[in-house]
This record gives sequence, C-alpha cells and structure tokens, in this order.
Amino acid sequence: MQKRFFNINGVNKTLVVAPEATLGDVLRRQLMLTGTKVSCNDGHCGACSVLVDGKLTLACITKMSRVPDGAHIVTVEGIGQPGNLHPIQVAMIAHGAAQCGFCTPGFVVSTKALLDRNPNPTRDDVRAWFSQHHNACRCTGYKPIVDAVMDAAAVLRGEKTVDDIRFKMPADGRIWGSKYPRPTAEQKATGTLDYGQDLGLKLPPDALQMALVQAKVSHANILSIDTSEAEKMPGVFKVVTHKDVKGKNRITGLITFPTNKGDGWDRPILCDEKVFQIGDAIAIVCADTIEQAKAAAEKVKVELEVLPAYMSAPAAMAPDAIEIHPGTPNVYFEQKIAKGQDTKPIMETAPYVVEDSFYLQRQPHLTIESDMGFAYFDEEGRLTIHSKSIGLHLHAAMIAPGLGIEADKLRMVQNPAGGTFGYKFSPTMEALLGVACMATGRPVYLEYDYQQFMTYTGKRSPWFIDLKMAADKDGKIIAMEEDFSVDHGPYSEFGDLLTLRGIQYIGAGYNIPNIRGVGRTVATNHVWGSAFRAYGSPQSFLASESLVDELAEKVGMDPLEFRYLNVYRPGATTPTGQEPEVYSLPEMLDALRPLYKEALAKAKRESTPDNKKGVGITIGIYGCGLDGVDGAEAWLELTKEGVTVSATWHDHGQGADMGLLGTTHEGLRPLGIRPDQIKLVMNDTGLAPVGGPAGGSRSQVVLGNAIKNGCEQLVAAMRKPDGAFRTYDEMVAENLPLKYAGKWAASGNSNCDENGQGKPFAVYMYGAFMAEVNVNTRTGKTTVEGFTVMADVGKINNQLVVDGQIYGGVAQGIGLALSEDFEDYEKHITMLGAGIPYARDIPDKFDIHYFETPRPDGPFGAAGVGELPLTSPHVAVVNAIYNATGVRIRHLPARPEKVLDGLKAHQAQPV
Amino acid sequence: MQKRFFNINGVNKTLVVAPEATLGDVLRRQLMLTGTKVSCNDGHCGACSVLVDGKLTLACITKMSRVPDGAHIVTVEGIGQPGNLHPIQVAMIAHGAAQCGFCTPGFVVSTKALLDRNPNPTRDDVRAWFSQHHNACRCTGYKPIVDAVMDAAAVLRGEKTVDDIRFKMPADGRIWGSKYPRPTAEQKATGTLDYGQDLGLKLPPDALQMALVQAKVSHANILSIDTSEAEKMPGVFKVVTHKDVKGKNRITGLITFPTNKGDGWDRPILCDEKVFQIGDAIAIVCADTIEQAKAAAEKVKVELEVLPAYMSAPAAMAPDAIEIHPGTPNVYFEQKIAKGQDTKPIMETAPYVVEDSFYLQRQPHLTIESDMGFAYFDEEGRLTIHSKSIGLHLHAAMIAPGLGIEADKLRMVQNPAGGTFGYKFSPTMEALLGVACMATGRPVYLEYDYQQFMTYTGKRSPWFIDLKMAADKDGKIIAMEEDFSVDHGPYSEFGDLLTLRGIQYIGAGYNIPNIRGVGRTVATNHVWGSAFRAYGSPQSFLASESLVDELAEKVGMDPLEFRYLNVYRPGATTPTGQEPEVYSLPEMLDALRPLYKEALAKAKRESTPDNKKGVGITIGIYGCGLDGVDGAEAWLELTKEGVTVSATWHDHGQGADMGLLGTTHEGLRPLGIRPDQIKLVMNDTGLAPVGGPAGGSRSQVVLGNAIKNGCEQLVAAMRKPDGAFRTYDEMVAENLPLKYAGKWAASGNSNCDENGQGKPFAVYMYGAFMAEVNVNTRTGKTTVEGFTVMADVGKINNQLVVDGQIYGGVAQGIGLALSEDFEDYEKHITMLGAGIPYARDIPDKFDIHYFETPRPDGPFGAAGVGELPLTSPHVAVVNAIYNATGVRIRHLPARPEKVLDGLKAHQAQPV
Repeated sequence: MQKRFFNINGVNKTLVVAPEATLGDVLRRQLMLTGTKVSCNDGHCGACSVLVDGKLTLACITKMSRVPDGAHIVTVEGIGQPGNLHPIQVAMIAHGAAQCGFCTPGFVVSTKALLDRNPNPTRDDVRAWFSQHHNACRCTGYKPIVDAVMDAAAVLRGEKTVDDIRFKMPADGRIWGSKYPRPTAEQKATGTLDYGQDLGLKLPPDALQMALVQAKVSHANILSIDTSEAEKMPGVFKVVTHKDVKGKNRITGLITFPTNKGDGWDRPILCDEKVFQIGDAIAIVCADTIEQAKAAAEKVKVELEVLPAYMSAPAAMAPDAIEIHPGTPNVYFEQKIAKGQDTKPIMETAPYVVEDSFYLQRQPHLTIESDMGFAYFDEEGRLTIHSKSIGLHLHAAMIAPGLGIEADKLRMVQNPAGGTFGYKFSPTMEALLGVACMATGRPVYLEYDYQQFMTYTGKRSPWFIDLKMAADKDGKIIAMEEDFSVDHGPYSEFGDLLTLRGIQYIGAGYNIPNIRGVGRTVATNHVWGSAFRAYGSPQSFLASESLVDELAEKVGMDPLEFRYLNVYRPGATTPTGQEPEVYSLPEMLDALRPLYKEALAKAKRESTPDNKKGVGITIGIYGCGLDGVDGAEAWLELTKEGVTVSATWHDHGQGADMGLLGTTHEGLRPLGIRPDQIKLVMNDTGLAPVGGPAGGSRSQVVLGNAIKNGCEQLVAAMRKPDGAFRTYDEMVAENLPLKYAGKWAASGNSNCDENGQGKPFAVYMYGAFMAEVNVNTRTGKTTVEGFTVMADVGKINNQLVVDGQIYGGVAQGIGLALSEDFEDYEKHITMLGAGIPYARDIPDKFDIHYFETPRPDGPFGAAGVGELPLTSPHVAVVNAIYNATGVRIRHLPARPEKVLDGLKAHQAQPV
Repeated sequence: MQKRFFNINGVNKTLVVAPEATLGDVLRRQLMLTGTKVSCNDGHCGACSVLVDGKLTLACITKMSRVPDGAHIVTVEGIGQPGNLHPIQVAMIAHGAAQCGFCTPGFVVSTKALLDRNPNPTRDDVRAWFSQHHNACRCTGYKPIVDAVMDAAAVLRGEKTVDDIRFKMPADGRIWGSKYPRPTAEQKATGTLDYGQDLGLKLPPDALQMALVQAKVSHANILSIDTSEAEKMPGVFKVVTHKDVKGKNRITGLITFPTNKGDGWDRPILCDEKVFQIGDAIAIVCADTIEQAKAAAEKVKVELEVLPAYMSAPAAMAPDAIEIHPGTPNVYFEQKIAKGQDTKPIMETAPYVVEDSFYLQRQPHLTIESDMGFAYFDEEGRLTIHSKSIGLHLHAAMIAPGLGIEADKLRMVQNPAGGTFGYKFSPTMEALLGVACMATGRPVYLEYDYQQFMTYTGKRSPWFIDLKMAADKDGKIIAMEEDFSVDHGPYSEFGDLLTLRGIQYIGAGYNIPNIRGVGRTVATNHVWGSAFRAYGSPQSFLASESLVDELAEKVGMDPLEFRYLNVYRPGATTPTGQEPEVYSLPEMLDALRPLYKEALAKAKRESTPDNKKGVGITIGIYGCGLDGVDGAEAWLELTKEGVTVSATWHDHGQGADMGLLGTTHEGLRPLGIRPDQIKLVMNDTGLAPVGGPAGGSRSQVVLGNAIKNGCEQLVAAMRKPDGAFRTYDEMVAENLPLKYAGKWAASGNSNCDENGQGKPFAVYMYGAFMAEVNVNTRTGKTTVEGFTVMADVGKINNQLVVDGQIYGGVAQGIGLALSEDFEDYEKHITMLGAGIPYARDIPDKFDIHYFETPRPDGPFGAAGVGELPLTSPHVAVVNAIYNATGVRIRHLPARPEKVLDGLKAHQAQPV
C-alpha cells in the first residue's frame, strides 16, 4: 500500500492505494466518483477518461503506480455539476449526444482535453481526437457528439453563448416533435446517473459479491463439482451450485411455437448435467468482496467429459452430429413460407433468374457497458432483481419456475442501461442473481467483465441463406425461393420467432406475388442467439437486397430504378400477404434519386485505381410490435403537483424516458400541463403495469397507444360541461377518480400461419439507404464516406431521440458491414477485437430525410424507429463496394482481406 | 431492503437501503457523501446535520424508514463546493469558524436551514437555533460561528457582498498577525476534508474492519479467552489476542521519572493476565465488514475473576487496597516542593492563613469526532499507522517494543483530527491497529463509537487538593502548603509528569517565597489519565485561585487588588524558583480593573432574589514546551514553485497548518514569497523530521524557532553580495544546497529537581479571566453571561487561530466549571450526558484583550496560546458564583443541585 497525495477535482486528497490498483478502481471504489465509468477494462471504450495533470488518461488501464505524486486529477464531476453545467455538457444535452449516456462522461472529459489544446478544431479534428483516444459510442453514430463539441467550442471561444445552444421551449409549450432534451440528459452529461455498476457500489454494506465458475469448453458432460476448498476461502459466505436451486433450474423462452420440437426447457440456470457453451455458469461464489469471490471461484473443482463441439449450423446439422440436447434434434424448428403459386415453374420459365448464397455473421452488441445486476428481498419479502432487462414481466415469467418462486414473489426492476440493442431481451444474469439471493438471503451483486459479457450473453444469430429470385421481362419480380439456417447457439428461447422473421423480411418491400421456402433453427455450441436490433432483418436483407442488385444488373436496370419499379404500391402485399398500411417507398426513392445520381457522378469523378468509389442503395422495412395482437397498459394519475404516468417502457438507452414524457405530454395537451409537472414511474414490476418488452420498435406504438388512451380518459374525466378542466382539488371535491388505466391492443393483427401468411404488425417503418464508399484497392479497406437515410417512422415524438436512433442504428450497420464479428473466442472478446466502429469509421456526411406519413394505428401518427436503421444499411455498403469494385461480398463482415481476395478474383476473371 | 427514490443535492437517485439503516450511514457508506460527519450517533453533536425536504435533520439518528419517499435531501456537498462556495461557507472561512472543522459541515447545513426560515436573525436567535438543534462545537467557543452566520445573513439579504467579508491580502503581502484563513479552511467548510473515518471508508477494498472485545468490569484476572466460535463467523479473517502480539505487549510512557516506583510497562496492548479498567481490549476481530466483526466479537468468550475496583484515588490509597499492578504500590510516584524557608513556622504566626480542600473532576475531552485510525504496510514494508496522534515520533517509541517491531519499520501518520485537546498525547488505538495489521497482513481500520471513545480513551485526571496559604499584614502572600493526590487511572504514562505540573502551577502567578508540599500519583481502576489542554493547571488553579479569593476576603481586600499586589513583578519567582521572562500581569490587571468595577456594579444593579449575579476573576499562567531542554527540527527546501517546508506540527484542530504557514511566511519575508507558494509537508514520520508532540503550547515556540532558523539559513544562502536574492535556477546553477534543516532547543532551561525547583520553560503565557454569572437561586443553575480575557501570548502569528484558541479554551473552562464530568459509566458516556456546552451555554458577551509582549525566546516574539485559556477560567466562574451567592463550590462541576445545596447551607448559617 502507498500513502499518496493528489488533487482531485480541485480538492487536495490523501489516499491509501495499492500501487497495482487502477486509477479507475480507486476513483470508483475508494472515492465513489462513479461518474467515471469502467467497462471494457482494456482501454478500448474511453468511458473511463479522466484528466491527469491535464493529460487525457484512460483510468481503467492506468495503474496508481503510474499516477504522479501530487497529480491533479479531473473527473467528469470536476468539469460541471447539475445546476452548474460546463458548456460542453450543455452542448451534449442540447444535441442529444447522450443517448444511453454510459460513454458520455468520457466524451465530456475527452472534449475538455481536446478543447484545452485546440480551441478551434475542425469536425475531422474532433473525430480524429476521439478515435485516437478510443472514445467509443455505440448509440449515437457520433454525429450528435461532434455537433455538440463544435457548439461547445464556439461557446468557449465566445462566438456563441450557452443560451444560444440550449433548448428553448416553443411558444405554444408543445414538446411533441421538438428537440426537448430527455429527462435523464443532464444526469448523463454530468456522470450523476447511476447505472447498474454504480448502484452496485452503493448497495447496503451487507451485499455479497458474486463470482461465477464458468465452463471453458463448449460442450461437455459434467461428472462432478467440488466446492469444499472454495467454501473455506476468506470472506466466502456460500458457494452455490445447481443443488441450491429450488426450482426447475431451467430458463424457458415461454413463447415457444407449437411446432418447435424442443420443449423450451433447455437452458440451465446453473449447469447440472451438461455444459452447452463456453461461459456456462456452473457455480457461484458469494463473498464479501469481489476479489475474495474470484479467488474462491478458482478453487471450485469441476470434472468434465468433453464432447464434440458444433460451432456453426452446418456442423450441428451434419449427419453424425450428436444431439446437443438429448431427445431434441439439433434442427428443432422449421418455418415454411408459401405465398401465391408454386415458384418452381416460374423459376424455370422466367426471363431473369438469379440465385446466390449469403452469410451474416454473429454480430456482437458491443454495448459500452457490460452486464451487471443485483438482487435482494424487498420490504414485502419479494425477491427483487435489478438488471438491464428490457422485458421485466417477460423475464419474471421465464425464470420463476426455474428459481422455484411464485410469480407474485418476484419483482423485476430495470437499472439505467448503458446500451442493450436487444441482448437484454433475453435474461442474462437474472436467474443467477435470484438463485444467489435465495441461497444466501443477502443482497447479491454480479458484474460480468467485458470478456464474460462477450462470451456469456447472446449475440445476433448467424444465418446461412440461399436465395433465388425471378423477374419478368419488364423487370417485375415475380417469384422468390428461400432456404436458410439459423445458428441459434445452444438455447432455444425465441429461436423459432427469429426464424419466422426471415419469412417476414426476406424480400420485404417488394410486391412478390409468389414465394416458397423454408427457414430452420439449429442448435449449436457457439454462443446463444439473442435479440438484436432489427432482429432477423439484417440477415434477411443481406440476402434479398444483395440479390435485388444482382437481379437489377441481370435485367439491365439501375438498382434504384429496379427497386422503384417493384416497391410496395397500393395492391401490393408483404411476403406474409399483408397489405402495407402506408406506401412511402416510391416517394422516398423519388427523393433519393437526384442525390443518388449526384453521388454516382461524384464517385465516378473521384475514383482512382488505388481508391475506387462507389454508391449502394437498399430499402428497409420493419414491423412495430410483437407478432399478432400485441398490447400494453399504462396508468395516469392526477396529483396535486401534476400527473404521474406509469409504464413499463424499458430503456435500452434509446430514450424511453423521453418517449413516455413526450407521448404523455402530447396526450395531455388539452390540460396545458408543463413537462416538468409529469412524473414518470417506470420499469419496476412492483410499481408499473405490464407493458411488454422493448423489442421490435413496439414501445412508441403499443405503449404509446395505451398512454394516449389513458390520457384521453383523464382529460375526459377532467373536462367540465363548459369545456374547461377541473383542477385536482375539484376532482377530489367531486369524488372523481384520479387514476386511469390506459390500454391498447393491435386487435386487427393475426399471427402468421404454417405457410408464413398473416398480418403480424399493424404499423411498419419504411426506409431507404444510400452508402458512398471508398475502397482502397491496395489494402482492401473500405471506408464509408457518406450515408443518406430516407426514413418514414411516422410522426416524430422527439427529434433528438429519432435522429439519434437513426444515426446509431446505421453506425451499427456500418460496423456489421465492415468489421464486427464474434466468432473467435480469443480475437473477438474485446471491444476493439470485435470490431467496434470509432468516430472516424462513421462518416460525417450523414444525412437523414424524414417522410412523416401519419400512421393510422400509431399514437399521434407515430410509428417506431429503433429497428429501421439497422434493417439494411450494411447491404447498402456491400452494394456500394460492388458498385466501386465489382466485388460482391456475400459473407460478412467485408474485412479488407476479404475485399482484397475479391479484387484478386475479379481481376483474374476475363473482363 | 427497500428500493427508494430520493433527490440528493439536486440529483435524482434510486437507492437500495435497509429501512433500519440510518440516513447518515446511507449517505456516508453507500453514497460516500463524507461531508456529513457522523460521530456521537446520539443526535447530540449535529455534525451529521442535513436537510430533508428543507427540514434540519440529524442523519445519525434518522432511520431510512422515516425519510419520506422522493424526499429532497441536501448535504453540505449540495450547499457549496470548493471554487463555488456558498456565502455561509465564505463567512465561516473568513471568521475562522472552522477550527478542527469536524462540526463545520453540520453548522453550514444548520445555518442554511436557519437563514431559509429567518433571514434576519439576532445573535441570540442564532445561538438558540444551534442549541435547539444540538450543533455542538468544541473548538471555537461558538463566537466565530455566530459572527459568520451574522455576516452570511447580511450577504444573503444583500446588505454586504461576499467580497466585503472575504479576507483580503494586506498591501505589503505580510500575513503574520493577520486573519489569513488557514489552508484547510475551505475544505473544512465544504466537507471535503477527509478525517480518519472518511479516509477509512476510502481505504483499498481489501481493508479489514476491526471490532474490539472489551472488558465490561473495572478490575479482574483473566482466566481464559476462547475465540473458536468467533473465528467461524461469516467474514471473519482473524481473531487477534495477546498471543498474536509479537513484542512485549505493553505500551510504555517512556519518560518515566527515575523516582517512579513503577517501571512504566503497565499498559497492555491486549490484556493478557488482568483487566484494569472498563473498556480494556482483550481481543480484536478482523472481518470484512464492521457488522461481521461486531457480531463475531460477541462470540468471543472471556472468563474472568473479578477483583475489587478502586474508582478514585482515596479508594486506591486505602490500607486494605490490593496493588492494581502487583509489585507496584498504588501510590507509585511522589513529587515534593520545597521553595524558600520551611512554611510550618510561618503558618503558625502569619496574620492571615486560609486553608481549604478542592476536587477537580475527571473532565472528558468531548471532541466532536470520536477516535479512529487504520494501518497497513507501505511500499517499503513499514507498518504504517494513521491515527489522531499528536505525538507521532513519541508514540512510535511508546508502542514499538510492545508490538515487537524495529523503530525504522514503523511509520506514523496523523490524519486530520476532529479535535483532541490532548487526549491524543497518549496512544489510544495505535498499538491495536499495529497488532491487527501485523497479525493479518492486511490494511485494518478501527473506529470507536462515541461510547467506546468515552470509556477507552484517557481523561483529565481528577485531583484531590488540600491547600493552605498565609499572607502578611499587608496582604502579601508569604507561604503556601500543598498536598494533592492525582487519580491517574490504571496506566502510569505521564502520570509523574502530571503530578509535577501541580508543583509548577499551584500558586503560579504570585511571588510566593516559601512553599512546601507534596503531590502523588495514584493508580486506580477508573479510566486512565491522559493529557488535556492546560495539563495539570485547571486542578492547580482551582485550588490556588479559589484560595486566593478566600485569602483576599480574609485580608479584607478586593480579589483584584489582592492579586494586583501579589502577581509577578521583577524580582519575583515562580513556584519552581524561576524568574518570569516578562511581567505582564500588573498591566493586565490594570486594564481589567475598570471593566471589573463596571461588571460588579452591573451585577449589583441587576441582581434579584431569584437571579443573583456575580463577578469572579482569576489569573492563569502556563509554560510553553516540554520541561527542560525541549527542541525540534524542521526543514525547508527551495523548489521551482516556491518553498516546501516540512515539520511535525501536529494538529489537534487548532490550526497547525496555519501555524506552520504563518511562521514560514514570516521567516521568508525577505524573499517576498506568496503564501500559496509555500507547500506544507506535515505529520508523517516517513516524510517530516522530529518535532516533538503537540502539547504544552510548545509548537509555536519550539517548532516555530526551528522553522525560523531554517528560514534564516535558506534566506542567507539565497542572498547575493548585493543584497538581492538568488532564484531557484541560480541556486541550482551555483550548485548551492536547496534544503536546510532548521533546529532549535530551549538550551537555557533545566528540569525541576526533587524539590520541584528548576527552569522548566523558556516562555510562559499569562492571562487574567473575568466571569460574569447569573445564579438562579430557585434551580441552582449558573449561567455565564459575560467573559473577559486578558491574554499575553506574545506576538500573534494568526489572529483567527489565536482568537479561536482563546474562545474555545475558555468555553471548555465554562464546561469544566458547570457541567462536564466523566464519572458515571452510564450517565456520562454520551456527549450530552457528559455535559458538553452548547451555544447558549457560552456567553455572546465574550471579549479578549491582547497584551502582545514580545518573547525574547519566542519566534518573532510569539509565545504559545492553546493552554492559557483553560488554566483558570473555570475558577473565575466559581469565584463569580461565590461573589453572587456566597456559595463556594470546591468540588466541580458546579451543577445546579450542588449550588442549591450550597445556597441552603449558606441560608442556614447565621449571617
């Protein structure tokens, strides 16, 4: 230990530290300066950025022995505080630069360091600085952050005032459609919002720390588990194994389709008989400190019989492959599609037929925050589990039988989440927290380090897709045949649903009268498949939006014009036979056309042999909601201070708080209530009604309608005969109810049948994407230099939120196209290794055009937004690479070596 | 556990708390908001004051279940921060209202609550508010705090500006003698200074928490100690007993006089054979959390044979008393005094002779902060002990043999101390920390709760004093006889020294040519005697300053005039036969005379049968330094930024930082250096040179001279032939040394001999006190309504510090006179029960008159200050009670029931 002296945020501090401790640990655990976030622990994410004697420093990898004596350390808490914001923070708030907000303190500190050195940076200087210093953001696509830095710099140079950049309430007091900053924005920009890891540090002192004993192999039988030595280690309270689990010790996907050949009870909470994937939890050590828990976990002895590991769908489908879950075939689900006439005869006779095979990789979510949570028994004796869950009621039902607890004795709470993008549609650690809490009777905390997070939370499932399309002589698509296999990892939850998404989205956007095909879900021993933004559609569109380009080429049409010819117009139906609710694609393509032509001309003009430029386009569609009759509840209560609204509108980081506030405020506009009079009660099954999970861009539509309904009830109840409104006191005096349950369900919908036909969604989002790329033909490296989005997400609730969703979703698409993967358990377990895009990987020329077609079934005309931008932007990049080089990448990501191989093969072909 | 939602310092926070946890614990341990100090845990001190929905709340006694949902909680951190101070904080700093500073955050918050309600309070409103809300301050005597509140209120009302009240640098840049705020003032006013308990929370995560197994009886033989059950308790790392102590397991007072009948090795670190007092430590449980440690401590089984307990000196001196330390008589030390001629013949013939008996109680120090510390092995493998020690090098030597560690392997560090007033002249927990750290190899933390602090740290030793004085026909004192017994508790450390103080101070201030007498140190089983401000003199002066009043009355002179006649003038000698170095008492009494007459007249005028008013005066004297040739070292080093000065100038809370800065700045004045260019390196035996303990008001004199000497060396080295000064760069270029060791020793002094004769101190402080009291004759309650201090502490280094010392010392004297005691182990173990004075118990009419006689041996003419104000102010109160009522209180404190008894007895006497 060392006695050290520092000045921290302007205050002299004497501290006792271990020289090998990191600055991040000392700031967070010893000083509780939790504004400095620590996640990757590799120096890859920059969330832990602090200033040490003015130098930007990554606290997570800086040992205390390297921090100079007397150093002046500045954390986000030292830059500005709520009520005393620094202009950088004001600008971040005004531009929606804080989305999930987990990276924001790091960006604030990094910006301070940049502007201290360079008061007048260019936008590229800003991007270069953030890239150089590894400030990663997974939500915003960086553009709002760069906008904020430019504004903050202008304020600091005296060219603007803080008031110039701050949001101003419109004269009519209406915030719907405005850039009203989300309620949590200030806390996010100041580092005062407590995420799971911060709440974990602030638990009562008797909380136990959990460390997992995890499988290091992908497939094995468990012969024995010996915890005796671990139990004796210092600080250990209990070592928990499957024997301590009171219930079935299984997590179920719940909504398993009847045709699924598995029973859905395949995922153990704590492994008992078998290990199914690397990382599977075998035991939990609960100890006073995490160091003690980890040391004891090393002492748990597990004897295994290693089995063959099937690391891809084809491997698991091989005839000699053993059943991963004995009794259930590895191919445990198939979904057919049969629309219109048999396609076989058409394919044989059509003038234009193309077919190709595609593979979309196992995309990691790469949230900046890893996974963590805690559990305790609340004052009513309910097992209360806090996590990043975006499906609280769903998860309660999924884990309760496994835990052996009655549903009403289980309470689920969502902590502020530093990004999920869908991985938290699955329970990750909730059941482990529950088991540990039940076994110890004490509050328990569990945090995955980034490597645990990468290996032991779900990923986007890789698909192997064969696709064939036919067009008539006019270029009208007349038939499609599809066959695809979904590598869903060892656990079946939602695996059938995902396969259904292929049926729904392959070829979506075009009026294809005749479709035949099948998709299948395959159990493997690679990491399990979970939800990921635009669930199932990036795989679907990789196939169909690539093949549409191939077909256009075959037909001899420009890709845009070919699409323009085929997109939905009145009379068209979706692949599931549904009539679209609006027809905005032609209008979008009309608007895109001049930009596209200009981009093509520019690419042609600027291309050189070493740097070939190209333009690619795609369309994207996604439904808002869960399949079929999706519904939700929300309640509103008039209070003395205003209105309290309660809903389970889970927050991935997208801005559920703003969604709820904006919708409620719009619904209550007749009352003339101010936003700050609306109190939000969210995301706690003990407090808020059932709202369904936050997936499939459903919240704004389904919850939004429920909220709107509640608002209507309250407004109606308050309305007096003369049209004025009763006050709270008048309502009480007249003994009128103050609380109203708003409800809504998509009652016109129907689930898809065995042929994949139905009306699964009431509202869809529509978009078109244009990517402009440069391919360096020496290195094979592709750079996206421009991106244009045409988006119809209906009427916009909040401009900052919607912009942020689109920028961020497309950025994830660019990563998907070019760099991201989780295949290799060594190379891909860090943020950098898994290919996260930094600021310079995302173009600054990045434009969104909105087509706000009001949705009949959307509240105040709104659709959802989150999935749309990740439906097919990656395919626009792929199509642009093809446009630039003639190389078609069918197996993502389009890493330089793959592009180089393609270039070589292309050059070898006869021209 | 409960999931709760609060707004804390303007930020929304979700928290998981135990409903039975206190708000103080949640703020400090869960949120690390350590500006809120928690000490008494009884709601008696107000250090934990916070606002809950605007209401002033004592966080230490407020259960979380009583904090409303959604409550807005404001702590000191939410009122103002360094660099962003609230006017209340600015005013506190400007007025020196933060002395040790431990109570300051509570006062800041309490003031906020007051001024929110009453923007224009009177001084009495302020005192009433603080008294009502139990905001206790033990350092300042409250007056600087009230001054600060009045100024802050004026600023908030817009009648003054913050700049009006803030300290302004004088034009000549000289801070000596000014009201320059102490360097730690801002941190104290903002709650950002980390005291031991705050540093303890911020230790590395592997720190163990210590809980003591303590004796519940006062005297016993130990038959057995069984730790087996405790060892098995959750979280326990080790249970430490005397068997784990590597060394002699004894603490030694070191400076034991040769005539002491004990060997000084009587205080066990961990009891082995015997228990000597309630609270004695028998075992230490080291566990991960304090709750675990305490729970396990309950499981340690100790078998005892209870022995007779001697709870006072007379009891222990009884002929049938057994030896508390077998082999050493309970009366283990005697000190004689023999000055001038034999007094017996004089007493027989003198015209005026009085004699009386007095008892001064076991005064508790009543620091607002209790006792705490921690230990670890530093990077050089040194056992490093942080505590409130005000004698780091001394304590190292006192505990090293007991621990069994080489002196150079032991490093001692003083944490910022929330008051000591001398109790930390003794090691309290240092050896326990050392034993636990050595036995576990881990960082260890120990904190005494307030009850442990009261029972298991030293107190002022009670004295039983018989005194006799004779005067000649002119009223000149001609002889004195004394006999006193010191109840020093079971441990001998400094017990002989304390007894010597009686010889030195009984009758001090008067030229008494002939003295005979003896004092004795007695071992008892009540709590051990430690140093306390003005060590030995409050007991001495209770006897002599009471008896001088009695003698004056007998002679028929006014008490002031009688004193005026007898005080030191040239030719006089002290009781130890030393010539005073200056003669300021006549001048002081001259200045006091008109005030005294006015006070007497006012008392007479305002007295009623129910409220009798009176005036009492005393003189006080105290030597600055340790007896004999006291010395110290300090070093100064020229740096690029300025000068670094290093000294072991321990801080009770009095302002060692300001003492060191002020002295150094004055010493370096020729260089024209700014105060902020002087860096202080203090109070760490690993970094700073030997400076001696902070006791006997020695630091300003002894260390001050060493610093002055170092400054002179540096200034001389920097001086160029032309009288200008070399810069740092020039010094380096000329290869001149940059670092200089300043040294000083009181070489003209000598220790007292067996007759109590010698020249123990080079510099003395002189003062006179006047108390104006009201005695309610119905209740017996005495209220001090005015206090006047005449002080000659030489030239003043810092006005705020010196004012604060005097106000605070006198306030402790008022408590000593009227309320404070530690006798009853049930009644007296809380702050309130032990009689701490609150704001309304200390008069607002409280004036200091300075007589800055330059001291030949004081640096820049300064003497010390801290002890003077507690030499005899209590006797001025006692004399005033007599003046008001004719009742003489000889047995302190003068509680109402005692005064009532006296009134009854007095009325029963024939007039």
